[in-house]
Amino acid sequence: MDHKTLILVQCRDAVGLVSKIAHVLAACNMNITAMREFVDEGEQQFFARIACAGIDAPDENKLLRELEEALPQGANVLVNPRPEKKVAVLVTREYHCLGDILTRHFFQTLGATVCCVIGNHDHLRAFTEQFSIPFHYISHEGQNQEEFEASILETLGQYEPDYLVLAKFMRILSPEFVAGYRERIINIHHSFLPAFMGAHPYRRAFERGVKLIGATAHFVTTDLDQGPIIAQQTTPVNHNFSVKDMVVAGKGIEKAVLNRALQLVFQDRVFVSGNKTVVFE
Amino acid sequence: MDHKTLILVQCRDAVGLVSKIAHVLAACNMNITAMREFVDEGEQQFFARIACAGIDAPDENKLLRELEEALPQGANVLVNPRPEKKVAVLVTREYHCLGDILTRHFFQTLGATVCCVIGNHDHLRAFTEQFSIPFHYISHEGQNQEEFEASILETLGQYEPDYLVLAKFMRILSPEFVAGYRERIINIHHSFLPAFMGAHPYRRAFERGVKLIGATAHFVTTDLDQGPIIAQQTTPVNHNFSVKDMVVAGKGIEKAVLNRALQLVFQDRVFVSGNKTVVFE
Amino acid sequence: MDHKTLILVQCRDAVGLVSKIAHVLAACNMNITAMREFVDEGEQQFFARIACAGIDAPDENKLLRELEEALPQGANVLVNPRPEKKVAVLVTREYHCLGDILTRHFFQTLGATVCCVIGNHDHLRAFTEQFSIPFHYISHEGQNQEEFEASILETLGQYEPDYLVLAKFMRILSPEFVAGYRERIINIHHSFLPAFMGAHPYRRAFERGVKLIGATAHFVTTDLDQGPIIAQQTTPVNHNFSVKDMVVAGKGIEKAVLNRALQLVFQDRVFVSGNKTVVFE
Amino acid sequence: MDHKTLILVQCRDAVGLVSKIAHVLAACNMNITAMREFVDEGEQQFFARIACAGIDAPDENKLLRELEEALPQGANVLVNPRPEKKVAVLVTREYHCLGDILTRHFFQTLGATVCCVIGNHDHLRAFTEQFSIPFHYISHEGQNQEEFEASILETLGQYEPDYLVLAKFMRILSPEFVAGYRERIINIHHSFLPAFMGAHPYRRAFERGVKLIGATAHFVTTDLDQGPIIAQQTTPVNHNFSVKDMVVAGKGIEKAVLNRALQLVFQDRVFVSGNKTVVFE
Repeated sequence: MDHKTLILVQCRDAVGLVSKIAHVLAACNMNITAMREFVDEGEQQFFARIACAGIDAPDENKLLRELEEALPQGANVLVNPRPEKKVAVLVTREYHCLGDILTRHFFQTLGATVCCVIGNHDHLRAFTEQFSIPFHYISHEGQNQEEFEASILETLGQYEPDYLVLAKFMRILSPEFVAGYRERIINIHHSFLPAFMGAHPYRRAFERGVKLIGATAHFVTTDLDQGPIIAQQTTPVNHNFSVKDMVVAGKGIEKAVLNRALQLVFQDRVFVSGNKTVVFE
Repeated sequence: MDHKTLILVQCRDAVGLVSKIAHVLAACNMNITAMREFVDEGEQQFFARIACAGIDAPDENKLLRELEEALPQGANVLVNPRPEKKVAVLVTREYHCLGDILTRHFFQTLGATVCCVIGNHDHLRAFTEQFSIPFHYISHEGQNQEEFEASILETLGQYEPDYLVLAKFMRILSPEFVAGYRERIINIHHSFLPAFMGAHPYRRAFERGVKLIGATAHFVTTDLDQGPIIAQQTTPVNHNFSVKDMVVAGKGIEKAVLNRALQLVFQDRVFVSGNKTVVFE
Repeated sequence: MDHKTLILVQCRDAVGLVSKIAHVLAACNMNITAMREFVDEGEQQFFARIACAGIDAPDENKLLRELEEALPQGANVLVNPRPEKKVAVLVTREYHCLGDILTRHFFQTLGATVCCVIGNHDHLRAFTEQFSIPFHYISHEGQNQEEFEASILETLGQYEPDYLVLAKFMRILSPEFVAGYRERIINIHHSFLPAFMGAHPYRRAFERGVKLIGATAHFVTTDLDQGPIIAQQTTPVNHNFSVKDMVVAGKGIEKAVLNRALQLVFQDRVFVSGNKTVVFE
Repeated sequence: MDHKTLILVQCRDAVGLVSKIAHVLAACNMNITAMREFVDEGEQQFFARIACAGIDAPDENKLLRELEEALPQGANVLVNPRPEKKVAVLVTREYHCLGDILTRHFFQTLGATVCCVIGNHDHLRAFTEQFSIPFHYISHEGQNQEEFEASILETLGQYEPDYLVLAKFMRILSPEFVAGYRERIINIHHSFLPAFMGAHPYRRAFERGVKLIGATAHFVTTDLDQGPIIAQQTTPVNHNFSVKDMVVAGKGIEKAVLNRALQLVFQDRVFVSGNKTVVFE
């Protein structure tokens, strides 16, 4: 039972899908060791993440073909997705999320390789470069949105990353840019969305007198802070917290939430279903 | 050191307030055993909750007078507020918050006495009455807001409660009604405000695909769901949760958050500062 | 797709179990709508909870027989376990867990029917009886363990409950008693086990100066506080908490944890695997 | 009001301490802006942390002398403790806590300066040195405890750190060593103490089948894992977690708890009272 295979399925829901998948796998002499499935009834979509083991390595192309034949037309099937993703990190000035990512990259526990860091300020260059990772300073100043994004895309073109991680990148990306990385841009927002969408969430949290603050990791879509949520967390605050204290407390959970979301995405545990996520933890 | 005294102070901030209070207390042979103070710099307000002990019981009126003289004009000072509050509970159809309150009332651990329950449905009568607490069914149907609230006020007039607890009371109260119970109406809202203000927060949470849901206890002001927040809590959810599952999970924290807020208010630990609370836990 | 069927499986692990189960269900024209499975590799046990739907109601006996034939010998299969369990609650003097259970019973949201309450003190009689539930006072005083338990068993004999809930029952049950209700007695312990097993956990938590306290719901086995854990939770405390304050804060989570555990058990989501539980939330 | 002064007091409890302190401060034209105090009744100790502001900078020596005169004999008073502490970090092979500390050091948000890292393995040298911090490899192999500790002490002698942080340092220090850094060694233990003291807490948590795991930051005393607890946190786990998964999940909270504890200690918010801490958050 040495050969392990991971299969991801997303398709229109229908009767007997689990049975059909199990049948194909049994015919290929593969044993299901762990299976997670979910039906989004609103979207009429079926999702499954299946870990298998077999004595022999399967013919991946044949397996893929047979699963696609067995499943409803248009099924999205992945057999053994690339285990180590390639990511580019976009930053502005704040270091806490980047620090966590680069440290994990250094010790090879990120589940991904950081190919480059792009900053619209030059502030995090020294920190990034000490990890021997290329830092590209692409300022938004004196450029319009189109020019700014063209520069970023040109730089990304050198690396062809699987995912972009916005690790406190404080610029809004255009619908055109986002469309090019559909379901592949992950952002960390410093509030428990949908509360405090947009700018200055900690200031607004302070002014509203909330007793907890939060952070949200989500895929970026064309609607600001409205994309599918991957992970969220909150932490208590009280009247003693100034805006600055909230920022400090918030950084801790921003880091934790983004880290959790990246783990889940890089392990192929996150599916997008309409404007929500299905997360097989 | 047998005589314990509790002193609450709210006043304009000024230099030396702690020293002035300590001076008055020392002159009355009272020892400070626990003191909490806070300065809201935005509102320029000083808040203190002081527990003292003395060999003799103090002359409360004299103490109050001396504190008021020592403090800035307009200071709001309370010496030994009534330890056991009197509350009326307003409900609609949901039982979970009421159940918790009446059980604590029964075993005398609520920190308050429930004088009556008022429902705009008759649904919770049997449950309430088995605790030997009067239940008043005041329907909103066929009445305009003014008539409906007049009926409630007439009923409340029999009891003169210190606080009204809206334990899942699904009607909006008019500014006039609220003004009559300023900082004395406590509501439980079934979301982590300011997310999902207004109606159907669980449905909207489901549709947004959040990964946590919450509850908020707050004082009621004339702006719907915008009053000073006393306590908040969240609990994780995931893609498996239907709206109904969220409602069930949410009831657990609604109950816990309302209970916590009531404890804090009934123990005189909550001050209102502008649109926020200062909570000396 | 009107007929819903719930199937629970526990058996020795083997190759192809999911496929075999799916095959049987497909042959019976049943569609898997939600499936959870887990393999405990240490115990070499397979666990599954399968929700199906079909146009016709299945022949439950035939389905059971076919599943047992398809699965390894000794497989434990349940088709459509009784949805509404019958429970007896054992108490001593503390009311908070009982209050929660009886309130849910009253409003039929417990997922079970409380057939009786047994107290080794008479303290909770009035509270129980106002819910029209029989209360049996069985004192342990002046009786040895055997006599005391014989009296309890005699009373239970009238009701034949599926589960016993120890809702702050402060007596230790003998191995003989426990053996008669294997995996059917649920206890709430007022600490995050394995910390503070045995008596006076809050006092010991206070003396140790912990910064969080907890509660644990578990199945009762012959080893005190060592049975399979179903649910656990913690809540923060600090130096201001006296033992009494910890007790008050602890009651809140005891209630929440026990409630959560009962929900899970009554919905047939909990399997026992050696000294652990598998919980399909 | 430009000159801010921080005062820390620990002394035998007595009548009128707050009044006496307030009197001294008022005489020095200093206004109390925030005050936290606590009386540990078991230990008969009084603790206070007082933030003051004044138009002129106080004569610190005079202020100290007057406070000591006003307070019970043996009072421990600190006026304006050094705001930026100097710390040495001791490690073995795990990087996650060290990574967090060095990143904060780099961006000057640790509230302390890391003067050196000492490892009993050489594993973390490259990571440490890229932050331009000296790394000392002091192996315990082939040395007895006394020799090993003598080498550490000699290295520490070059730096004279205020605190030692054991950031996953997997060796036990002798009572003699600990005595030399009384209340100045902070350890992170990978369980919610007192559960799973000693070695392999995650393995034991896995075997016990707990539903949450935790981490504890504490001062090191001569009793292993028994020192005063500064901060604790837990995170949920379930039957799907292998020991390795628990280790991964645990690292996240270890890092968060140690970071929180260090913040509190470095901001002079933590007092030791017997075997507990008083933490003015």
